[in-house]
Amino acid sequence: MGKKDDAEQPQTGSDTGTKLPGMFSRYKSSVEQGLHNAVPGGENSEAYRLLRYHLGWVDQEGGPMDTALTQGKALRPTLCLFACNALADDYSKAVPAAAAVELIHNFSLVHDDIQDQDVERRHQPTVWHLWGVPKALWSGNAMQCAGDLSLLNADAQDVSPATVLQVSQILTEAYLEMIQGQCLDLNFESRTDIKPNEYLYMIACKTGALIRSALQIGALLATEDQAAMKAFAEFGNHLGQAFQIRDDYLGIWGDQATLGKATDSDIRRRKKSYPVVFALEKASGRAMEDLLRIYEQEELEEDDVQRVMAVLDEVGSRENSQRLTEAAAARALEALKPVSLPRWAQNEAEELVDFLARREY
Amino acid sequence: MGKKDDAEQPQTGSDTGTKLPGMFSRYKSSVEQGLHNAVPGGENSEAYRLLRYHLGWVDQEGGPMDTALTQGKALRPTLCLFACNALADDYSKAVPAAAAVELIHNFSLVHDDIQDQDVERRHQPTVWHLWGVPKALWSGNAMQCAGDLSLLNADAQDVSPATVLQVSQILTEAYLEMIQGQCLDLNFESRTDIKPNEYLYMIACKTGALIRSALQIGALLATEDQAAMKAFAEFGNHLGQAFQIRDDYLGIWGDQATLGKATDSDIRRRKKSYPVVFALEKASGRAMEDLLRIYEQEELEEDDVQRVMAVLDEVGSRENSQRLTEAAAARALEALKPVSLPRWAQNEAEELVDFLARREY
Repeated sequence: MGKKDDAEQPQTGSDTGTKLPGMFSRYKSSVEQGLHNAVPGGENSEAYRLLRYHLGWVDQEGGPMDTALTQGKALRPTLCLFACNALADDYSKAVPAAAAVELIHNFSLVHDDIQDQDVERRHQPTVWHLWGVPKALWSGNAMQCAGDLSLLNADAQDVSPATVLQVSQILTEAYLEMIQGQCLDLNFESRTDIKPNEYLYMIACKTGALIRSALQIGALLATEDQAAMKAFAEFGNHLGQAFQIRDDYLGIWGDQATLGKATDSDIRRRKKSYPVVFALEKASGRAMEDLLRIYEQEELEEDDVQRVMAVLDEVGSRENSQRLTEAAAARALEALKPVSLPRWAQNEAEELVDFLARREY
Repeated sequence: MGKKDDAEQPQTGSDTGTKLPGMFSRYKSSVEQGLHNAVPGGENSEAYRLLRYHLGWVDQEGGPMDTALTQGKALRPTLCLFACNALADDYSKAVPAAAAVELIHNFSLVHDDIQDQDVERRHQPTVWHLWGVPKALWSGNAMQCAGDLSLLNADAQDVSPATVLQVSQILTEAYLEMIQGQCLDLNFESRTDIKPNEYLYMIACKTGALIRSALQIGALLATEDQAAMKAFAEFGNHLGQAFQIRDDYLGIWGDQATLGKATDSDIRRRKKSYPVVFALEKASGRAMEDLLRIYEQEELEEDDVQRVMAVLDEVGSRENSQRLTEAAAARALEALKPVSLPRWAQNEAEELVDFLARREY
């Protein structure tokens, strides 16, 4: 199954771990600028029109949109600009690449929605649901083009051609890893014997690779220091895991209203997310029999959902999932230790990790 | 609707205009080598498995395949290597780019088959038909990645990073044009008032752009002579039109057995290819009424097909289409005149144009 929508518009919360860290608002206008440059206006083709709709810029008829409701938090480009900013102060040269990463991510969401036949994302009908599979297919592909071109044109920003090439390679390889993750995930659908380590490998590809590449690219555009680049890549790998496992957690135990979702929980959708994979490994006897029986069904009734929730409780899936998230979060911060970052960047990295591991949306 | 399969395996014909020009066999092994380098073996992921199947390298179970039956003639990479060879003799540095162009083309075919719900291509069941839409979607995307990476890695071949970037930009922009063509084509499906010029613009995007980019890239990798590059680009634009209009012709009046197709003719599929667009503009009175009535139906009976064929005859669609092809072919050769090419290259360009304008498959 496709990626969960991690891009819901943040609620303004006041509790620790639920308030969106300051870095998101600091880079917001740069990210928007980068995206608008990558998807230039005045372009009337169908492909670009749907792309602008998906990005939350226009409504179905092409009219202006209340972006507060429909835009995401733009995690990946924010990470890209943060890495560059932390290592080199001036982060402007990373803006085209940050936009490229966000476009690749959104492109994958458009295709994900086709795959999962999801009818709603970010409170809006999905592209394929409005315009059909063929147009969604091609407008997803157009989005990827726009991302690639944004990146290839980065040499206008004082970045050497050799560096642009390297950035392009990192992003394309990450994207290929993401596809491999998608394929593994599809294969998991028909299996009930997925090992937790196989699952972690799958999400490292499907979610982790692009998050890691965002940080790697930001670092590469800031410095030639190989150790710093490696540290940010490692940071990204662990961050990706923390992020996805927390996402899995919220998909089951999160507040659907806070998440802004109209859909059912991941249990009813029979998603084999981490808590379920963990339970399928830990459960025994009657609990295991029930899980296997339920996950072989085509559709789940309310009774089935309740039974799965009870088994997850029984085997400690909830605590285990959160423990795994916190451990990955701790490893993420550990990975940054060898790099000497300015105090503000160190603080913000901590704030970010804390947020991603404890967020409610 | 999607692109016609222009990649059928050539029959060995002896008539003028039906025998595959010599350049195809000369570059065949280089193209294959480039493709195999771009899609390395030993890769067990699902995404790459389906890609190898689509390319005709393996069967559904991954076993070896009789490639004579299932591989295409590889027009685009052949054009790329020819342009480089004609201008610089050594064409080895264009091999990764030639493979990239072919992979982008094949990627679009995989997505086209999803869009058109075509169940057969190159005598084999299509990827989505065998493995479903989600896997076809992602393996198409993986194919595009493999193409991009092939190109980005071209700097290992003595090509400067700046040139690799430029090649990458040309290819990505051509690919975006192709998508815009696909979108226009989709919009044409519900229209019966398409003007011939609109149609020609659509195919210039959908078919012409990638063919042009193959030649442009080959030239760019051979020379810094802007005039030569421009001439090859122009050559490609006209060649693309000649190629597509001949394709449209064969889709209606071609021998289905020679074409290796199990599907119905383009008339039954209600494709608004050039001969139909021409007739929709030229027909009047009863003929026009019949055309409009028939093209508004969801499905066509044998009677409808016969009536459309009769109207096409009446308005001279067949002759007009072939005239258009020949005119584009002549303009293609005209475009090359300002470049001083070696005699062999000049001869081969003529042979190629002649073949593309008169081929039977």
